[in-house]
Amino acid sequence: MTSVVAQNSAVRALVERVTARPGYTSAVGTRVIDAEPGRVELALERRDDLLQFSGFFHGGVIAGLADHAAGGAVTTALPPDKIALTIDLNVQFYAPADGIRLIAKAQARHVGSTVAHAAVDVLVVTADGTERQCAHATAAFRAVERPTS
Amino acid sequence: MTSVVAQNSAVRALVERVTARPGYTSAVGTRVIDAEPGRVELALERRDDLLQFSGFFHGGVIAGLADHAAGGAVTTALPPDKIALTIDLNVQFYAPADGIRLIAKAQARHVGSTVAHAAVDVLVVTADGTERQCAHATAAFRAVERPTS
Amino acid sequence: MTSVVAQNSAVRALVERVTARPGYTSAVGTRVIDAEPGRVELALERRDDLLQFSGFFHGGVIAGLADHAAGGAVTTALPPDKIALTIDLNVQFYAPADGIRLIAKAQARHVGSTVAHAAVDVLVVTADGTERQCAHATAAFRAVERPTS
Amino acid sequence: MTSVVAQNSAVRALVERVTARPGYTSAVGTRVIDAEPGRVELALERRDDLLQFSGFFHGGVIAGLADHAAGGAVTTALPPDKIALTIDLNVQFYAPADGIRLIAKAQARHVGSTVAHAAVDVLVVTADGTERQCAHATAAFRAVERPTS
Repeated sequence: MTSVVAQNSAVRALVERVTARPGYTSAVGTRVIDAEPGRVELALERRDDLLQFSGFFHGGVIAGLADHAAGGAVTTALPPDKIALTIDLNVQFYAPADGIRLIAKAQARHVGSTVAHAAVDVLVVTADGTERQCAHATAAFRAVERPTS
Repeated sequence: MTSVVAQNSAVRALVERVTARPGYTSAVGTRVIDAEPGRVELALERRDDLLQFSGFFHGGVIAGLADHAAGGAVTTALPPDKIALTIDLNVQFYAPADGIRLIAKAQARHVGSTVAHAAVDVLVVTADGTERQCAHATAAFRAVERPTS
Repeated sequence: MTSVVAQNSAVRALVERVTARPGYTSAVGTRVIDAEPGRVELALERRDDLLQFSGFFHGGVIAGLADHAAGGAVTTALPPDKIALTIDLNVQFYAPADGIRLIAKAQARHVGSTVAHAAVDVLVVTADGTERQCAHATAAFRAVERPTS
Repeated sequence: MTSVVAQNSAVRALVERVTARPGYTSAVGTRVIDAEPGRVELALERRDDLLQFSGFFHGGVIAGLADHAAGGAVTTALPPDKIALTIDLNVQFYAPADGIRLIAKAQARHVGSTVAHAAVDVLVVTADGTERQCAHATAAFRAVERPTS
């Protein structure tokens, strides 16, 4: 039991560290809600610079959050010296992302030695706290050596 | 001839207006390079807040640029009272987007009365001016009434 | 309760009728395992003419089964005078489809008035009865008037 | 010059051999129209067992033809001891495949050491000889050792 807790704690620390690095994911305000091997949950809050012309979260923001969540889910399921690079990403937009927060729940679905897949449910949270699925994404990744820096 | 020029000028003005509105596309610095009915070309410059952990453009930024270019290509091919909303977006990442500028060239590929498709080539421009394709995207859209605002 | 049973019975009869019509789905041996509004489960058995060069079910057969299951799941969730036509189909191949039977479990995920989405898990059953997921598919559909014939 | 001709001849022979093997591709009547490294063109003729309920080519048949063409385009661009296995396949259905013949024109778009991408245009030929694009597909592949048999 202790070792699983320790492992999950290390996994979460890894996902938080990558997410918080200067760059796109921290700039848009991505937060790590939960992370364990093969499963990552992220969130980000509504900001004017993340919206499209009708005031909904932009498709690129949804795609970026899904990609980062899926990549985290796969990376945390890989051996510790490997990292996942996206081969392709498919986002199905179910409904306008009209709300105050996005949540992405990613699950590694098949992890091979060189290629892995993940699926992501993206929810939008409205001002009254209601959650509604606004997108579903699938992605394939290849496992490469983790950069040392 | 004049009417085609006038039409293209109006089309370009529309794409520029939508792109420049406060929100995601203007915040990331999207510029309209070219636009005519059914075809839109966009660009954006490297900035630290658009990169992933290796210093390449983030997949979400590539997806967002492709989505906006494809939506513009389809919208400019629709009747003037309609606008395109993304049904789904598929991005194939060919190579790391390692460079100083992204260019997205979108083409409407089939435009029906309710559903339309587009394909997008995304190029990365390196510091020495070399262009290299880093992604290919396809997207489907539905045509809806244009918001009056 | 009775009306739900009656409705499900009619839904299953519809899916069976469409599946059994002369054409691709009957030619490859598609069977309806279960069907209710928004959910369809299909199966087909291994045959030499459905395999690729390594003796696994061919990707096109997997794609065709997923498409038909997804279309059924969406059509059974639409009003009775409508039918779903595929806009696009994305199949993620998790593992070789090495076995004696394919099963596709499709679920309508969002059904609007003109566009709907579905997700499909495709399983392969081995000779000893083990089920293993070999693919995951997503698809978008548009709702059109059902042909009268 | 001679060596390019000889190489293309060997490439075409390889694609024809794989296509003609007992299994799905030969059972549906797939013919090789053209093949050179990185580019494959296939065709198949209308048959009752390849159609959906409206008499158009079934989506699964289109997906299968696109997959095989894309896999051929990538395999012929790989070193001779490698073969391409599909990671995922995305098919955009532009219009009903209402005609007497399907043609798939596949092009390898980026070929790396472990992962490769291809894009495919699928045309339908009507009875009067008109060609019309009915689908566009993209696919990712991983390169694996070619089976010795």
